[in-house]
Amino acid sequence: MSANEHHIIKQFDVELRILKDKLLLMASVVEDLLASAMRALRERDPAVAEQVAQGDRQVNVLEMEVDELCVRILALRQPAASDLRFIAASLKICTDLERVGDLAVNIAERAEAIAHESPLAAGADLQRMAQGAQDMLRDALDAFVRGDADQAEEVLERDQAIDDQYVETFHSLADQMRAEPESVERALSLVFIAKHLERVADHATNIAEMVVYLVRGQDVRHKFSVEERNRRG
Amino acid sequence: MSANEHHIIKQFDVELRILKDKLLLMASVVEDLLASAMRALRERDPAVAEQVAQGDRQVNVLEMEVDELCVRILALRQPAASDLRFIAASLKICTDLERVGDLAVNIAERAEAIAHESPLAAGADLQRMAQGAQDMLRDALDAFVRGDADQAEEVLERDQAIDDQYVETFHSLADQMRAEPESVERALSLVFIAKHLERVADHATNIAEMVVYLVRGQDVRHKFSVEERNRRG
Repeated sequence: MSANEHHIIKQFDVELRILKDKLLLMASVVEDLLASAMRALRERDPAVAEQVAQGDRQVNVLEMEVDELCVRILALRQPAASDLRFIAASLKICTDLERVGDLAVNIAERAEAIAHESPLAAGADLQRMAQGAQDMLRDALDAFVRGDADQAEEVLERDQAIDDQYVETFHSLADQMRAEPESVERALSLVFIAKHLERVADHATNIAEMVVYLVRGQDVRHKFSVEERNRRG
Repeated sequence: MSANEHHIIKQFDVELRILKDKLLLMASVVEDLLASAMRALRERDPAVAEQVAQGDRQVNVLEMEVDELCVRILALRQPAASDLRFIAASLKICTDLERVGDLAVNIAERAEAIAHESPLAAGADLQRMAQGAQDMLRDALDAFVRGDADQAEEVLERDQAIDDQYVETFHSLADQMRAEPESVERALSLVFIAKHLERVADHATNIAEMVVYLVRGQDVRHKFSVEERNRRG
């Protein structure tokens, strides 16, 4: 290997490491945003929504940076098959993370809208659901960066529990609305928060499916989603 | 130019054309799925949901084919800057289209769930909303394939109207629930259908933003979305 080739390979390694770090940073920021949004709901703090929206701007900038970096690596390094798939996956994963940032903003806005009204018992499970979805997201990203397909498959198995919690919360909030029509607006906000959390778990699932694909070369995306869809109704 | 180079360039053109055609096919299939789902709602036909789910499987297969094709083109052709951006955008756009297919399935399932119940007046605007969202999607894809930034910007301007229709429908359905608690389950289904349609328009917006970026080299993604978000609340 010539000194020059060696130089190029080392640069490429550094660029891949920067790409992974940026994705990890995005994941860590969106995790914090989700935690803040759920704290706003729990503590009925209307000031948090603006903070979450601010934080989301950082996520948006990171998404554009990841896109640029991927295109630059593709253009300059002409990476081989496995690195190419990793970069193609990064282009998709940063979109999933950006979308989770948006969902955190939506949750914080809903929390703000109902912060001055009395809480509803039916919403108690949302904190548990949020914790489950955040854990899935963190583990999926961790599996991606470490290339761990076993960990990714374990994330895929957890999506079902979040879906079940969503359906349960949905029904208990619908009961609430029927029993107390004056609570409709508040209960609708909680229905949407539950739906947003279920979507966070879906984005974690997307990321985990991508990891299985990268590592095992097997596209499990629509294997899982068809079953899931059949259940959801 | 050698005969061999000429040969490679022609192959590359054909591959790009196949990529565009596959994206157009995906767009056309998801448009049909959305139209079927909305017809199921209008005509209270519970048999359509299964057809839409079947059709969505084709969309899922197309998404995987587009991904594979993009990676293959990147690996074999090492395309230059503008083609590279087009391919990176295709990887993202096929995810948007796949997601719209899922939304059509969700709408059809909600339509099926309420097909045997009496209709609610508050849901009348949904058909108009669906038409607007479908038009945006078709025009965004058309702008992408033709590289027309003006058309893409015109799509971006239409997102606001769909958001307004969503907010209006949401409030009229919330009123409905308060006034008639026994309609809560039906009204919730319509709230979700409205939300899904608003998301379809968001995916069209994502695609249109990508076109502006490709053609003008200007990333408008988070310029529009911040304003939008400030409005949405």
